[in-house]
Amino acid sequence: SKASVILYERPIKFEEVDAANIVFFARFLGYAHEAMEHFFSVLEGGYAGLIVARRIGLPAVHVEMKFSAPVRYGDALRIETTAARVGSRSATLRYRMIRASDGALSAEVTHTVVTTDLVALRSCAMPDDVRATFLAHLQPDS
Amino acid sequence: SKASVILYERPIKFEEVDAANIVFFARFLGYAHEAMEHFFSVLEGGYAGLIVARRIGLPAVHVEMKFSAPVRYGDALRIETTAARVGSRSATLRYRMIRASDGALSAEVTHTVVTTDLVALRSCAMPDDVRATFLAHLQPDS
Amino acid sequence: SKASVILYERPIKFEEVDAANIVFFARFLGYAHEAMEHFFSVLEGGYAGLIVARRIGLPAVHVEMKFSAPVRYGDALRIETTAARVGSRSATLRYRMIRASDGALSAEVTHTVVTTDLVALRSCAMPDDVRATFLAHLQPDS
Amino acid sequence: SKASVILYERPIKFEEVDAANIVFFARFLGYAHEAMEHFFSVLEGGYAGLIVARRIGLPAVHVEMKFSAPVRYGDALRIETTAARVGSRSATLRYRMIRASDGALSAEVTHTVVTTDLVALRSCAMPDDVRATFLAHLQPDS
Repeated sequence: SKASVILYERPIKFEEVDAANIVFFARFLGYAHEAMEHFFSVLEGGYAGLIVARRIGLPAVHVEMKFSAPVRYGDALRIETTAARVGSRSATLRYRMIRASDGALSAEVTHTVVTTDLVALRSCAMPDDVRATFLAHLQPDS
Repeated sequence: SKASVILYERPIKFEEVDAANIVFFARFLGYAHEAMEHFFSVLEGGYAGLIVARRIGLPAVHVEMKFSAPVRYGDALRIETTAARVGSRSATLRYRMIRASDGALSAEVTHTVVTTDLVALRSCAMPDDVRATFLAHLQPDS
Repeated sequence: SKASVILYERPIKFEEVDAANIVFFARFLGYAHEAMEHFFSVLEGGYAGLIVARRIGLPAVHVEMKFSAPVRYGDALRIETTAARVGSRSATLRYRMIRASDGALSAEVTHTVVTTDLVALRSCAMPDDVRATFLAHLQPDS
Repeated sequence: SKASVILYERPIKFEEVDAANIVFFARFLGYAHEAMEHFFSVLEGGYAGLIVARRIGLPAVHVEMKFSAPVRYGDALRIETTAARVGSRSATLRYRMIRASDGALSAEVTHTVVTTDLVALRSCAMPDDVRATFLAHLQPDS
């Protein structure tokens, strides 16, 4: 009864490091969002279709990040995305970010989003296909 | 016995919004870092002097973010920075980000950093001027 | 008969360098845009008012950049903005970007924009206040 | 005798648009750099190996950009990269950026780089493998 993990791998780009020569910490949130876009690529039109055509978004209400190993240019991150919790309007995504060069855990991110009508900027019911995607990858205990 | 809060205000830039037309959530971490650079502007050479000349940095080990009100282009954020905790090698910064147009709390960020030798990428003792800056703005109860 | 130059100075931020440890070349275009926002701060509501309230924008149709000296974290850029040409719907901005630490010319950017109705994404007549701002800083020979 | 074009396709990301809801113009330079990294992926260790291991870089000295069609979130760009000129120390890359949804030309970028010793920040001889990569994709007339 293991829910499947969604994998997303991406190399570090030249401009993603900071003056300490490691990936700038805010970039990891951008990576999390990329992984979420990938997670929802099963939706018709992908995540972009949700935003642009249906005008429904998933803005963050809470984020927690733990950093355990820095990443440098020339390396890549393998991101494992699951759903930690699914509610009626909100859900929590969890990302484990693994440094590809040595398999070290680089960062863990939890990301709680609320289904939002982007026209009214007000929470709204979670569409069935969004809920189904979360449920297909729900791992509450991980 | 109120420690002083460091204020940093910055307008939202044209390119800081996302396809939902609100400030992209990862940008808030960039704003937090800007506010930290401002917080340490009292150091000789500023935060850049710490990084470039002394090769000591403050990489994040933990971040928590709560989002309560979106921000749009044309608005600005007033960021109040304090220290929530100061340890021997680590410290926690707290940022309250206020939407300038109406005073609404937009985001709260806590940001735990570890004093790090950037050459060895290993934790090191916190320099006295860094510690003094944290202590001057310590508000453990806020 | 010298038209006035608009000055905008900004420090380099921690995350604006790349893996070569100098400011990433695309950042200079972001700086140019910041300088343009500053150039138009005399408009009612600033450049943001033009975009958000009046739904008129100035998308680029042509950009030319010459790079002559790299910039590092800890330094700042002084940006001198003028108008090189003003037409009926388009205009060309020119930015001279000076490295603050030693006065060296770091980059020169010319940036041709077209007044655009952002709802229709179609060129439109240039508003009088926008034209007046360009004309107040027109230096065709520089 | 057609030199081969290097193709690189990438979707627009959620945070790459601006307050006018189209891709921010500076992003196209970031895309050009990504396409260059892809162009040099044939080098041992890729472009990152050149930068990190060999400490040789290709900073820009000149950029020219023509914008002809805006791109929105939900679309993608197909980037065709060739070399327009190869000199002893410098070379010019040319990127044609095609909007995937309708095949419209969105932007053309030329990008002149100088082979640079990143330790001394001084121009240096172009390594043979870098030159060979440029020559394999040289299209002076395009």
